[in-house]
Amino acid sequence: MMNPILAVGSVAFDSVRNPFGEAVHVLGGSATYFSVAASFFTDVRLVAVVGEDFGERELSVFAGRPIDLAGLQSVPGETFRWKGEYGFDLNTRETIYTKLNVFEQFQPAIPAGYRSSPFVFLGNIHPRLQLEVLDQVNPPRLVAADTMNYWIQRTPDELRAVLARVDVLIINDAEARELSGEANLVKAARAIRRMGPRTVVIKRGEHGVLMTRPGEGEFFAAPAMPLEQVFDPTGAGDTFAGGFVGSLAASGETTDAAMARAIIYGSTLASFSVEDFGLDRLLRLTEDEIRDRFRHFKRLTYFDEG
Amino acid sequence: MMNPILAVGSVAFDSVRNPFGEAVHVLGGSATYFSVAASFFTDVRLVAVVGEDFGERELSVFAGRPIDLAGLQSVPGETFRWKGEYGFDLNTRETIYTKLNVFEQFQPAIPAGYRSSPFVFLGNIHPRLQLEVLDQVNPPRLVAADTMNYWIQRTPDELRAVLARVDVLIINDAEARELSGEANLVKAARAIRRMGPRTVVIKRGEHGVLMTRPGEGEFFAAPAMPLEQVFDPTGAGDTFAGGFVGSLAASGETTDAAMARAIIYGSTLASFSVEDFGLDRLLRLTEDEIRDRFRHFKRLTYFDEG
Repeated sequence: MMNPILAVGSVAFDSVRNPFGEAVHVLGGSATYFSVAASFFTDVRLVAVVGEDFGERELSVFAGRPIDLAGLQSVPGETFRWKGEYGFDLNTRETIYTKLNVFEQFQPAIPAGYRSSPFVFLGNIHPRLQLEVLDQVNPPRLVAADTMNYWIQRTPDELRAVLARVDVLIINDAEARELSGEANLVKAARAIRRMGPRTVVIKRGEHGVLMTRPGEGEFFAAPAMPLEQVFDPTGAGDTFAGGFVGSLAASGETTDAAMARAIIYGSTLASFSVEDFGLDRLLRLTEDEIRDRFRHFKRLTYFDEG
Repeated sequence: MMNPILAVGSVAFDSVRNPFGEAVHVLGGSATYFSVAASFFTDVRLVAVVGEDFGERELSVFAGRPIDLAGLQSVPGETFRWKGEYGFDLNTRETIYTKLNVFEQFQPAIPAGYRSSPFVFLGNIHPRLQLEVLDQVNPPRLVAADTMNYWIQRTPDELRAVLARVDVLIINDAEARELSGEANLVKAARAIRRMGPRTVVIKRGEHGVLMTRPGEGEFFAAPAMPLEQVFDPTGAGDTFAGGFVGSLAASGETTDAAMARAIIYGSTLASFSVEDFGLDRLLRLTEDEIRDRFRHFKRLTYFDEG
């Protein structure tokens, strides 16, 4: 039997403008991207909060996928909203607004049936909430967490308490440098590992992913899939996390080999996600396409000694 | 028998300042880095020019290596000099001065015994000189060339004439974008291939290398070796080219597999080069170290389907 994943994070309405067009009020949020991506691999138990404006149309996105919504709280008020605008090369992003709305009062309540979930993903939310989740669950086999510069700067002590209790931290390169105070990524990764996480996964956007953990295979590096057109990077990081944790949970292994494979599955899902606006590409993605692109990654990186 | 490489480029005295220290008047230049790196793999025939200030101490760098100096012209005047200063993270470099000196009148004269060299490397020099080299040699099995933004901007027609006659162009990502007018690297690489080179190798510094060529294995991507300390990136690109072309010449093959392996050997040599100032690390490098780091690259990138 496959291992289900408990995923806690945000569900949101996003508005995005970039050089290729505009998407207004589309379903987004860290837990949404994560759950849809992970659901290609295993069962997902989604814990998040939405407002009264979250209806059948939004729920239909999760329908037909192994995503359990018993932990999706619906409360009076509006759902979390975010609007961002990308620069011409998609490498810069400006937040136009962030309206927390119902998310401001979010208290993650883990349903009794979720408390023994073997794999747990803590999306990018207040570290205090991440701790509250960990306090409600029986020790999982693996806890993976995301965070961001906002929490690194504003809530360093609570973030440190989270780091002491997670197995895998998934962050981007700028965040790794800021969290560690080290400009060099190797030094940064080692410093973060000393804060708790045995494995640190550093996302480098168009430059791929660097994973580090103790031992002989201390580093694993994957390039990003070369793409002729990137439409919308929104959610790519959470999609990566969904493919990564999803692959680990499906295999039930956390060996170096399983972790490396999971990095490639995460990169595979993320490479699809950016091909269209919002969730659109993920929602029409097939298992065959995932398998083909995984093999494409193999061709992309394979060499032998000759 | 291994295939010798004809290498044409600059030999220079470099002065470099960076956050870790300063090197004054040390041996450098594209042909120097290339030749020392390639000499770990096969015989190199060096064609360049030096001045009267180039003496026994400088020549000793090539001694004991399979580098033939019959094409190294010594003429009255001073050797090419370059001084550069790196920013705190080594990602920015400012040229303090470039004194062409004897290089200003350089006319590459290919000795008769070099004219049937099966592998040819054209270092980053005026495209007109690159063409003069090609006019003097019998059709080689493989011609690899480097160039830079200066020639892309100032001598576009002569550069186009070179591109029509080379098999492999080795440039960095900013140059690829400038040469092609395409911001996206996939589009840039395809556009450059339409100018002539069947294979385009794009160097991305700390983000590794992307190679593209026609066919099923259109893309091959290699990360850079994660290093805790990078001392001096000077010459890393030419060192990469030396390992790359050296590996191809040694194997005598230009298949997708041989090209991928050559990218890793180039990356291996470059990863050593940056560990110390100037040529210092390459000059004390051993074949065992090269073999170990090649295998390290394998561990760094290997994954399977499970």
